[in-house]
Amino acid sequence: MKPIVLLDPHPRTLELLFSPEDLGRLKSLASMTVWEGGRMPAAMVEKHLPTALAVIGQTDLPRARLERARNLRAIVNVEGNFQPNIDYAFCFERGIHVLGAGVAFGTAVAEMALGMALGLARGIPAADRQFRKGREVYGRFSNQDSFLLSGADVGCIGFGNLGRALIKLLEPFRCRVRVYDPWLADRWLAEFGVTPSALDAVLAASRILFVLAGATADNEAMIGKRELDRMPRGACLVLVSRASLVDFDALTAKLRQGEIRAALDVFPREPFPKTHPLRRLDNVILSAHRAGSLASSYRLMGEMVVDDLAQILNGLPPLRLQRAERETVARMRSMPVKR
Amino acid sequence: MKPIVLLDPHPRTLELLFSPEDLGRLKSLASMTVWEGGRMPAAMVEKHLPTALAVIGQTDLPRARLERARNLRAIVNVEGNFQPNIDYAFCFERGIHVLGAGVAFGTAVAEMALGMALGLARGIPAADRQFRKGREVYGRFSNQDSFLLSGADVGCIGFGNLGRALIKLLEPFRCRVRVYDPWLADRWLAEFGVTPSALDAVLAASRILFVLAGATADNEAMIGKRELDRMPRGACLVLVSRASLVDFDALTAKLRQGEIRAALDVFPREPFPKTHPLRRLDNVILSAHRAGSLASSYRLMGEMVVDDLAQILNGLPPLRLQRAERETVARMRSMPVKR
Amino acid sequence: MKPIVLLDPHPRTLELLFSPEDLGRLKSLASMTVWEGGRMPAAMVEKHLPTALAVIGQTDLPRARLERARNLRAIVNVEGNFQPNIDYAFCFERGIHVLGAGVAFGTAVAEMALGMALGLARGIPAADRQFRKGREVYGRFSNQDSFLLSGADVGCIGFGNLGRALIKLLEPFRCRVRVYDPWLADRWLAEFGVTPSALDAVLAASRILFVLAGATADNEAMIGKRELDRMPRGACLVLVSRASLVDFDALTAKLRQGEIRAALDVFPREPFPKTHPLRRLDNVILSAHRAGSLASSYRLMGEMVVDDLAQILNGLPPLRLQRAERETVARMRSMPVKR
Amino acid sequence: MKPIVLLDPHPRTLELLFSPEDLGRLKSLASMTVWEGGRMPAAMVEKHLPTALAVIGQTDLPRARLERARNLRAIVNVEGNFQPNIDYAFCFERGIHVLGAGVAFGTAVAEMALGMALGLARGIPAADRQFRKGREVYGRFSNQDSFLLSGADVGCIGFGNLGRALIKLLEPFRCRVRVYDPWLADRWLAEFGVTPSALDAVLAASRILFVLAGATADNEAMIGKRELDRMPRGACLVLVSRASLVDFDALTAKLRQGEIRAALDVFPREPFPKTHPLRRLDNVILSAHRAGSLASSYRLMGEMVVDDLAQILNGLPPLRLQRAERETVARMRSMPVKR
Repeated sequence: MKPIVLLDPHPRTLELLFSPEDLGRLKSLASMTVWEGGRMPAAMVEKHLPTALAVIGQTDLPRARLERARNLRAIVNVEGNFQPNIDYAFCFERGIHVLGAGVAFGTAVAEMALGMALGLARGIPAADRQFRKGREVYGRFSNQDSFLLSGADVGCIGFGNLGRALIKLLEPFRCRVRVYDPWLADRWLAEFGVTPSALDAVLAASRILFVLAGATADNEAMIGKRELDRMPRGACLVLVSRASLVDFDALTAKLRQGEIRAALDVFPREPFPKTHPLRRLDNVILSAHRAGSLASSYRLMGEMVVDDLAQILNGLPPLRLQRAERETVARMRSMPVKR
Repeated sequence: MKPIVLLDPHPRTLELLFSPEDLGRLKSLASMTVWEGGRMPAAMVEKHLPTALAVIGQTDLPRARLERARNLRAIVNVEGNFQPNIDYAFCFERGIHVLGAGVAFGTAVAEMALGMALGLARGIPAADRQFRKGREVYGRFSNQDSFLLSGADVGCIGFGNLGRALIKLLEPFRCRVRVYDPWLADRWLAEFGVTPSALDAVLAASRILFVLAGATADNEAMIGKRELDRMPRGACLVLVSRASLVDFDALTAKLRQGEIRAALDVFPREPFPKTHPLRRLDNVILSAHRAGSLASSYRLMGEMVVDDLAQILNGLPPLRLQRAERETVARMRSMPVKR
Repeated sequence: MKPIVLLDPHPRTLELLFSPEDLGRLKSLASMTVWEGGRMPAAMVEKHLPTALAVIGQTDLPRARLERARNLRAIVNVEGNFQPNIDYAFCFERGIHVLGAGVAFGTAVAEMALGMALGLARGIPAADRQFRKGREVYGRFSNQDSFLLSGADVGCIGFGNLGRALIKLLEPFRCRVRVYDPWLADRWLAEFGVTPSALDAVLAASRILFVLAGATADNEAMIGKRELDRMPRGACLVLVSRASLVDFDALTAKLRQGEIRAALDVFPREPFPKTHPLRRLDNVILSAHRAGSLASSYRLMGEMVVDDLAQILNGLPPLRLQRAERETVARMRSMPVKR
Repeated sequence: MKPIVLLDPHPRTLELLFSPEDLGRLKSLASMTVWEGGRMPAAMVEKHLPTALAVIGQTDLPRARLERARNLRAIVNVEGNFQPNIDYAFCFERGIHVLGAGVAFGTAVAEMALGMALGLARGIPAADRQFRKGREVYGRFSNQDSFLLSGADVGCIGFGNLGRALIKLLEPFRCRVRVYDPWLADRWLAEFGVTPSALDAVLAASRILFVLAGATADNEAMIGKRELDRMPRGACLVLVSRASLVDFDALTAKLRQGEIRAALDVFPREPFPKTHPLRRLDNVILSAHRAGSLASSYRLMGEMVVDDLAQILNGLPPLRLQRAERETVARMRSMPVKR
C-alpha cells in the first residue's frame, strides 16, 4: 500500500506547484489527499493525519494533532517562511522533518536583485522615463551618477539562501563583498569569498547594499535613520527580502534628500499607500513583491517537494528543501502570504 | 630626449581620458603636444608630425602626412571605432601600430546589456512605471511574462569585445549561448563555451537576443522584418552596439504588435524623433546611447593608452588596445561621435 | 560560569587539531576537560559528562551515559567517520547535535585525487621511474598513452563531501562528469552540473573514475570483476575513499592485464602486504593512506569545531561540521583509525 | 582555381597534424603541395613558392625567396617556436602573416605543470617509490612536507600562452599568484587576477614557482644560484618551458641540499646525461620533454591551421594561431626540435 500524503497547499495550488511530470511522480510515490482553495477542513485533517506520512502545506499542527500522527515523517511548508503553525519542538523530538520550500525562490530573487542593482547603478528605469518624456540626455552627460558593478564594494545584510544565490551571480564582477549576518560564523562566510563584517562597516563601505535577511525576532527596523546615514553618498540600497527590516519612514526621508538610491520589492503594507511619496522619487525603483514569485519558482518548489518525498520514502534524508532548525525556527517571524 | 606624442583627442579631452596618475606617467614617458576643444590645426600637425612617435586622436593621416612621419610608431583612436581618416595600408606596410581604444567600453556595455536583459525578462522598468501610477499588481500575478535568465537560450549577433565581455557576466546563469558572427571561426567560438550558429538558428532559438556587432559594410539593416519574424513570441532584443544593424521601421512595427520586447541604447538618429511611437510602447526600454560612456570607461581608455605607449617605448608590442586589422579595417563603417 | 567541554580526541591530539589561536578561542568559550594519548578513562567521563555541554572525540556514549548528560548539546567526532560508539537515536530525540569533522579532509583529498588523476593520465610517476633508470623516452613517443583531462569523461562513485570538493577543482577542465550515488536525488546532482547516471553507465563511459563513496552497509566490494570489466581500455581508477568498496583481488587481476590504470590511497589491510603484486605494476600509483591527513586538514577540523561550538553557545545551529543523519548514520561502516 | 598551399611540416607529419576531417577540409580549401620526412627540397620550394598562398612548415624563407612569393599571405610554423629561418621584416612589410602553432601546446603543458605541482606538493611519485620498495609510511606521518595548493602562494616566471592556460586551471585553488614577465604591462596582468611582481618578490614569496617563459635573447640562465637562494625552504620549482632559463648546475647543487623541490620537463641536453646526479634525488620529478607533445596537441595545431587558412581565404584575419610580433620575434631564441 502506498504511503499517504496530505496536500493542503493553500495559498498555493497543485497546478502552480507541480509540472505534469512531477505530479505524475508524486502520484506514483504516494496516495494523495488534496484540498485546494483554502485551508483543509479540520475534519479532513483529523481523519487522514493518523496515517499520513507527510503533510504538504501550512496545516495547523499543534502537539495534540501531531501526537496522533504516528506515521508522520515530514511536514513541508510551501509558502516560503516558517510560521508558528507547528509544534516544532515535538517534531524535532520525534524526528519529523520540517521542511521549507522557500529556497526555491533563491535564483529568481537573486536575478531580480542583480537587475535592480544594475538598474540603479546605470539609471536604467530613470533614463527610460526621461526618454519617454522626450527629455533624454545622450551619451556621457547622462552618466554623471552611473558606475560599474565590476569591482564595486558590495554589502549584504543577511547571507542565507538569497545571499548565496546572489553571490554566484556576482562572481564575474569581482566585487569586494562584505557580509553582516550575526547567525553565521566568520570563517564559514569567508569560504564563500566574502568578508564578514560588522553592520556599520558594511553600511559605510558599500556602494550597493543588498538587504537579504529574513524577518526575525531581532531584526525589526534594523535599518533605520542611524544606519541609512552611514551609507556613502550615491550608495544604492536593494531590498528584496522583508520590509520589516527597514524603517520605511527613515528610508523615505533619506531618499527624499536624494543622497542615496533604492530599489524596493517589499513594503510594510501591501498594497502600498497610493499617495506615498516614495512613488514619486526619481532615485527609486519600485516593484510590487515580484522578486521571487515566478512560475518557474513554484514549479521548482514542487520539484524539490517530490524529490525530498522520494528521499524520505527511500529511507534517506531530504536534500533539496531547507530544514527548520531547532535553534532558529522560533526566532523567525513572518507574515503569512495574502493571496 | 623624450619621444614626442601628439595628443589630438577631440571629442575626448585629456581630463576625460587620464587620471592624474596616468597623466603623470604619460608626461614622464613622453614630451606632449596637446590640442583640445576641436581637431588639431593642420599647421600644428604638420609641424610636429615628423618627430612624433605617436598620435593619440582621430587626426587626419593620409599618405602624404604619414610619409613625413618618419618616427611614427603608433596611432591611437580614442573615439571607439576605426574611421577612414588614416591611410591604413601605409601604416601596416611601415609597421605603424593603429590602435583602437573602443575595447575600454566592453565592461560598461556588457553590464548595461545584462541590466537591460534582466529589466526586460523581469519587467523592472515597466512594473516601476505601473507602481508610480498606482496601478501595480502584487506578487505572481504581475509575473505572467517574467522568466529567468538562468538556463535561458541566449543569442549573440556579433562576438567581438562586447560579446566576450558579456559572456563572462553570463557565466553563472549557465545559459545556452548561440553566436552568429561571420568573421569568426566556429571552433574559436566554441572555446568560449558558446555554440556557433547560423543567423536564423540564433534568431529562432533565443529568448534573449543581444545585438553586439559593430557596423560594417555588410551588415546594414541585417535585422529586418524577416529576421524579427523568426524571433519566438516573448523574446527580448537588446541592442547596444550600432543602430545601423537594425531596420528600425520593421522593429517598431514588430514591437507595436507586442510579441517581442526590446531594450535599445542606439538609434538611427540621435536625438531620436520626439514623437516616435517607440517612446510610448510598454514592451520597450529606451536608453540614450548611455551603455559605454561612463567616466570609468574613458579613464580605462587612458590607462590602456599609457600602458601601450610604454610597451612601444620599451620595444615591445602593444597589449591592451585593439589593433586595426589589415583585412577588416576597411570594412568598418562608423559614424563619428557627435559631442 | 563557562560551559564545560570534554576533549577526548584520541587518535587526534589538541596540538594536532588546534592552532594556538583556535585553542585560545576554545578556552575563552568553554572550560575544558582534556584527556590525550588514549581514550578518556571511564571514571573521568562519568564524572564530567553530567555537566558537559559538548564532547569532542570518539568517547563511548551509550544510552546509559547519555541519559545522565543532561546539558549535552553536541558530540563531535574528530576521527572522520561516524562509528557505532554512540546511541544516535537518543541524540536525535534529545536534540543533541552529532557532528563529524571528516568534511575537513575534503580539499586535501580532492587535490590528491586530482594529482593522482593527472599522474595517471600523463604517466608522471611512471615516466619519472624510467628517467631514474636511464630509460626515459623523449617527447611524443613517450606519450602514446597520455591524454588530456580537459574535456575528458569523468565518473564519480559517490558524491558526498569528497565529490563536491573535487568537482570544484575539475571545473576549468570542462569534463563531462557522470555521478553514481544512490543516496542522492538526480535533480539535486544536476544542480552541480554533473550527470546523474546508473553505475554501469558511469563505469562504461568514464576515462577517469573516482571512487569517493564512504563505506556503507550496502557497498562492500561494489567494484568487482564485473564492474572493472565494464571500464574502457585505458581508463584510470582513482580510489581515495574506502578500500572496502573495491574487490582488491579482482582489481589486482585486472591491473595485471594492463588494460586499465589505477591510483590507490587506501588498502584492505594497512600496512599492505609487502609482497603484494600491486607493488610491482607499472600502471599503478600507490599511496599509503595519505590523501587527507595533512597538518592543514587537522587544523581545519579544529577551526570547524571551535566555530560550531561558538554557534551552539550562541543558540545557533552548527554550520561547518557535518551532521549525522538519522536515516543514514546506522548504515555507515567504518574502521576506526589506527594511529 | 584553388589557392596553393605548401606543406613542409617536418619534424611533424600530415597524419600527426590533421584529423581525417581536418585534412578533408584542408583539401577542399586549397591545392596542396606536400613533402614529408625531411625538409622540402629547394627545387620544389622554388617551383611552387611563386604561386603559393601559404607555407605550412619551417621552410627557409629568406628575402630572396619571399620576393618571388607574390601570392604569399601566410607562413605557419608548426614546430612551436619562431626561428631565424624567415626574413620577418619583409613579411611584416608585405603583410604576410607569420603564425606559430605553439599555442596548441598550452592546455597540455598547463595540465602537466599542475600535475607536477601536485606531485611535488603531495609527494606523489616519491611516496609511490617508497611503496614499491616496501618502505611506505601510512597516514599523516608521511605528510610532514605535504601542503595544499589551495590558497598557496604561486609564482609564474613568464605569462604567455602557458601562463594563461595554467591560470585557468588554478582558479578553483584560489591561490595568490605573482607574475614576473618584463614583456607585459602590470595592469594587463592584473586583469587576469594575478599580481605583477619583480623577479625577486616572486622568488621569495612563492611556495610553487612555475617557469613558463620562452627562451629569449635576455633570459638565458636567469634562474641561477642567486635566484634559487631566494626561494623559501620547501618551495617547489616546476620547469616546463625552456631549460635555457635555468642554470642547471646551480639547480642541481641547490636540490642536492634538499631545501627545495623541482619538477623538470626540459633539460639543457636531451637526452640528459645518464649519470647526472639529478637522476638520483628524491626531491625531484623528472620528465623527458613530455609536457606538450600529446597526440591531441598536434591535432589541435592542425585544427588551428585549417581554421586560420579558412579565415585568410575568406579575407579575414587569422584567429587561433599566434602571430609573430615585429618587436619580439627577433628576440626569441629556440633550438629546433630534434625528432
